Amino acid sequence: MQITLHAPLDMHLHLRDGKMLKTVAPLSAKSFAAAIIMPNLVPPVSTIEEVVAYKKRILAVTEDEGFEPLMTLFFKDTYDFAFLQKAKKHIHAIKLYPAGITTNSEGGVSTIDSDALATTLQAMSDLDIPLLIHGESNGFVMDREKEFIPVYEELSQKFPKLTIIMEHITTKDSVEALHRYPNLYATITLHHLLITLDDVAGGMLQPHLFCKPIAKRPEDQKALLEVALNAHPKVMFGSDSAPHPQSAKESCGCAAGVFTAPIALPVLAQLFEEEGKLENLQAFVSDNAQKIYAYTSPKKEVTLEKKPFLVPKTHGTVVPMYADQEIAWRIKSVSL
Amino acid sequence: MQITLHAPLDMHLHLRDGKMLKTVAPLSAKSFAAAIIMPNLVPPVSTIEEVVAYKKRILAVTEDEGFEPLMTLFFKDTYDFAFLQKAKKHIHAIKLYPAGITTNSEGGVSTIDSDALATTLQAMSDLDIPLLIHGESNGFVMDREKEFIPVYEELSQKFPKLTIIMEHITTKDSVEALHRYPNLYATITLHHLLITLDDVAGGMLQPHLFCKPIAKRPEDQKALLEVALNAHPKVMFGSDSAPHPQSAKESCGCAAGVFTAPIALPVLAQLFEEEGKLENLQAFVSDNAQKIYAYTSPKKEVTLEKKPFLVPKTHGTVVPMYADQEIAWRIKSVSL
Repeated sequence: MQITLHAPLDMHLHLRDGKMLKTVAPLSAKSFAAAIIMPNLVPPVSTIEEVVAYKKRILAVTEDEGFEPLMTLFFKDTYDFAFLQKAKKHIHAIKLYPAGITTNSEGGVSTIDSDALATTLQAMSDLDIPLLIHGESNGFVMDREKEFIPVYEELSQKFPKLTIIMEHITTKDSVEALHRYPNLYATITLHHLLITLDDVAGGMLQPHLFCKPIAKRPEDQKALLEVALNAHPKVMFGSDSAPHPQSAKESCGCAAGVFTAPIALPVLAQLFEEEGKLENLQAFVSDNAQKIYAYTSPKKEVTLEKKPFLVPKTHGTVVPMYADQEIAWRIKSVSL
Repeated sequence: MQITLHAPLDMHLHLRDGKMLKTVAPLSAKSFAAAIIMPNLVPPVSTIEEVVAYKKRILAVTEDEGFEPLMTLFFKDTYDFAFLQKAKKHIHAIKLYPAGITTNSEGGVSTIDSDALATTLQAMSDLDIPLLIHGESNGFVMDREKEFIPVYEELSQKFPKLTIIMEHITTKDSVEALHRYPNLYATITLHHLLITLDDVAGGMLQPHLFCKPIAKRPEDQKALLEVALNAHPKVMFGSDSAPHPQSAKESCGCAAGVFTAPIALPVLAQLFEEEGKLENLQAFVSDNAQKIYAYTSPKKEVTLEKKPFLVPKTHGTVVPMYADQEIAWRIKSVSL
């Protein structure tokens, strides 16, 4: 059995920088036509010059793969219309982080006050720049996403023409919110389709499955599967693949993030096939995103086949999901 | 400020065996008059000979400390009245583990069917041997304890004269169940009074705070504090101090258990003092347990004083809770 995907897209990707960028970017570039690149470097990517330079560094390590990095800015409430008009040529979205909520988010927004942020948000709305949000409160870990939903609702209502994307949703509450506002969309990761908190902390503790937002309850996973497997037009695939060195994962105070980039498409194919929904994979990994972002991807065809593949133990210093385990699908060929 | 505790007891303690026993047993023996010793060795302690031999090994490394190991058997449904009558001279309780629920519990009970276990449970009831239970289902990690409550309820009703102790309770549901049946009691650990899942997985992942049952929600912690700080007569302190080598904690697939034995009494004093409940500590760490177990402890007085104490980074290969941090109380003196 096989499937050919047209221009698969990863709408939420961490490529880091320096040596880590060199390790991980080619793995995404191999199988994806394009990806939304997160701006949470140290310091965050928040000027046009930084966007341009970061894009150049990504392209330098992914050339000949037919991979387009879709750049983003790290949200600042100082961005005005004039700045964003210039920035728009270089970016596809702006990512808003509540301050301190995840890796390298210290420079994020401390209070999400729709009035205080109105200048920037209105300009983004006028310029059709999507707003991507890491939507978590600073409350109890299992409640953070749910507690953040009123912020999405307020922003959706106040800026009805702004495309707002709830990044890496993990709960049935977010799925329900998605249905309430026409300008609210969501990315869903591979790992949140596959695991619950049980897989992280139900047996032995699994640092390589520890991520933010943390994997939630079985009923949450079910709600995510429902919209992803049916390729609901408001959801799209975003891996949130987030590499950390093995030493930072297997230690006292383990960093958050699951590294899925190299296995994302084969495992998605496996999941969709097992659930009898393989025909919806194209929409989930590409068509929906192209519509939501009003983006047309360059041509790239990735053929996956149902043949066992042993996932490497590591890529450089990074341990991928399913490390040293056999998965049922693999990439057969890529054509540009 | 200081407090003298008379015969402090740890009613749930893992001492392991061999080299680990030599490392950890003296630390408990130093500050406790006695402790209920868990039988989950490999293989489990399930014969009188094993109980006697294990007790001897414990005493060999704790001599001169005035410490009494209160031995337990690993529950088997083959134990009958005749066996238990003999065993009673050597044990203070029997510990029941659902199979596979925690460290070294593989030989536990696969289905807790009160009819199938009736011979053993009735004999225990007739002989006044308390039944200690690790009460978790094999369901979703945050629901396991709640899902187990019907088992406690059935056992409490079917064996109304059997003393049943819900070990290391972590939820408000268990606290509520405690109030419903006269023969149901509970131990509470130090760490479940201090942490929630937020402390384990809300920031960076903290393997040294990963335990079974996993720390729960803020409202659960509050319910535990309520009965512990007020020394509710049906609850008693049981540390569930569970040492693992540092290498087994800081790794991919971290073992469950928090090592609190060496800091338990000072940190309890700190907590009870902060909450204005220092006068209840004696009942929580000794008097309640002596009544519930109908046990009279040998004399041992432990005086704690409010003076800063820097917790060691490790004891042997084991990292204690609060490693390398300062706590506000310390052990001043011990007299036998």
